[in-house]
Amino acid sequence: MRNFMLELSYDGSRYHGWQRQGNTGVTIQGKLEDTLSRILEQPIELHGAGRTDAGVHALGQVASFHAETLLPCSEILAQLRAFLPEDIGANTLTEASPRFHARLSCTGKTYRYRIWNSTRPCVFRRKYVWKVPEPLNDTAMRQAASLLCGTHDFSAFRTGRSKKSAVRRLDRIEIFRSGEELCIDYTGSAFLYNMARILTGTLVAVGSGRMAAEDVESVLASRDRASAGPTAPAQGLCLTKVYYPESTAPHSEET
Amino acid sequence: MRNFMLELSYDGSRYHGWQRQGNTGVTIQGKLEDTLSRILEQPIELHGAGRTDAGVHALGQVASFHAETLLPCSEILAQLRAFLPEDIGANTLTEASPRFHARLSCTGKTYRYRIWNSTRPCVFRRKYVWKVPEPLNDTAMRQAASLLCGTHDFSAFRTGRSKKSAVRRLDRIEIFRSGEELCIDYTGSAFLYNMARILTGTLVAVGSGRMAAEDVESVLASRDRASAGPTAPAQGLCLTKVYYPESTAPHSEET
Repeated sequence: MRNFMLELSYDGSRYHGWQRQGNTGVTIQGKLEDTLSRILEQPIELHGAGRTDAGVHALGQVASFHAETLLPCSEILAQLRAFLPEDIGANTLTEASPRFHARLSCTGKTYRYRIWNSTRPCVFRRKYVWKVPEPLNDTAMRQAASLLCGTHDFSAFRTGRSKKSAVRRLDRIEIFRSGEELCIDYTGSAFLYNMARILTGTLVAVGSGRMAAEDVESVLASRDRASAGPTAPAQGLCLTKVYYPESTAPHSEET
Repeated sequence: MRNFMLELSYDGSRYHGWQRQGNTGVTIQGKLEDTLSRILEQPIELHGAGRTDAGVHALGQVASFHAETLLPCSEILAQLRAFLPEDIGANTLTEASPRFHARLSCTGKTYRYRIWNSTRPCVFRRKYVWKVPEPLNDTAMRQAASLLCGTHDFSAFRTGRSKKSAVRRLDRIEIFRSGEELCIDYTGSAFLYNMARILTGTLVAVGSGRMAAEDVESVLASRDRASAGPTAPAQGLCLTKVYYPESTAPHSEET
């Protein structure tokens, strides 16, 4: 049994998120599993590093799967590229060490949230940004961001209730402008359901003056979802990078 | 009667080109004229600098129209932005000198053709590029491009027959790479029907080695469409800039 690591980009607009589900519609995982199963002539079970929500995109999603096959990676990759729809891109396929698992081996992820912060139209990126025409104060947003970083109970920044721990380590939040776009990069150990989107909604509330930067401390302390900002739209979010320890790095052909 | 100059961007994917037509589908001009007529409560006739084909995009299309109105430009622009679909963007609206005409006053245009020159997938720009996975030799393409510049009879680079002169001035062709993208910028006085796309198909034939760079001279001389390369797909083409003499520059509020 060989173990494979697949690096992916996708436009999430058309999909019901990453995770395969009952009958609720087409998912990225479902599309990939079906395609790989057909190419490799065996049922394939795919593990994704991040379970992106419906409408969320990926630039560097990583998935792993086991398969019994003699095909070289380059051949499997070429067939994947031939059979996948245009909005799912197979970037690289490499053979991984036997114990590599895209989700369990993952040590961290970076999500980017893109805000079109302008009253001007945004034609070509319209499906990949959240349009916020009101001016945003980046200094206040950076101040709030610095208070959110670190290891905290992020219960106020998750959708739904759960008995599982909401303690996560948020390593850094980088906020920068590129033309009319305001980007927020979140890097952390792991993210709760909707966490990057609720963090964004809260930072935008701070940037627009509806919330004071220092208030995010009491939001964190409250552990109450209702005290945080709104959930920012899915389409502005993109899983950009997934991190693994050196030891699990692929040890075979890179295509 | 006031005269207006409107600067536009659009994603041409969904449209049957710029020019209003009988019953063949939705056009950019039609959509804009209908919207402006409703806002200004009078029939509006729009003149576009370039009549882009079905599926061709624009970053800097310019259009002009006359209207009897007391509304300030900023108000008309805000209403346009509110009523236009997301894939048509009104960038600026300014009052122009009385004799300004977007097409007749125009002294030149730049079209950009974007080629995704890679076997890697292209997820987020897929609707704005032509995918050419085979390696292209930019040096040969630049050599051919230099032979195409100047004032020539471009009959070999136009679709359809016409008794009108096919003599045009092609000022420059710039070819450059940005990551996996190969861009070709065409700047000239005016373009024949499909000219930028046939020039691109011919340059790609040269880049891939199917045609010698120096052969474009005999293609030009032949005045025969059949001797040039294929018409490159519409979706890779974008009208990026339109030029006017200093004197016709807008003389009123810029929004």
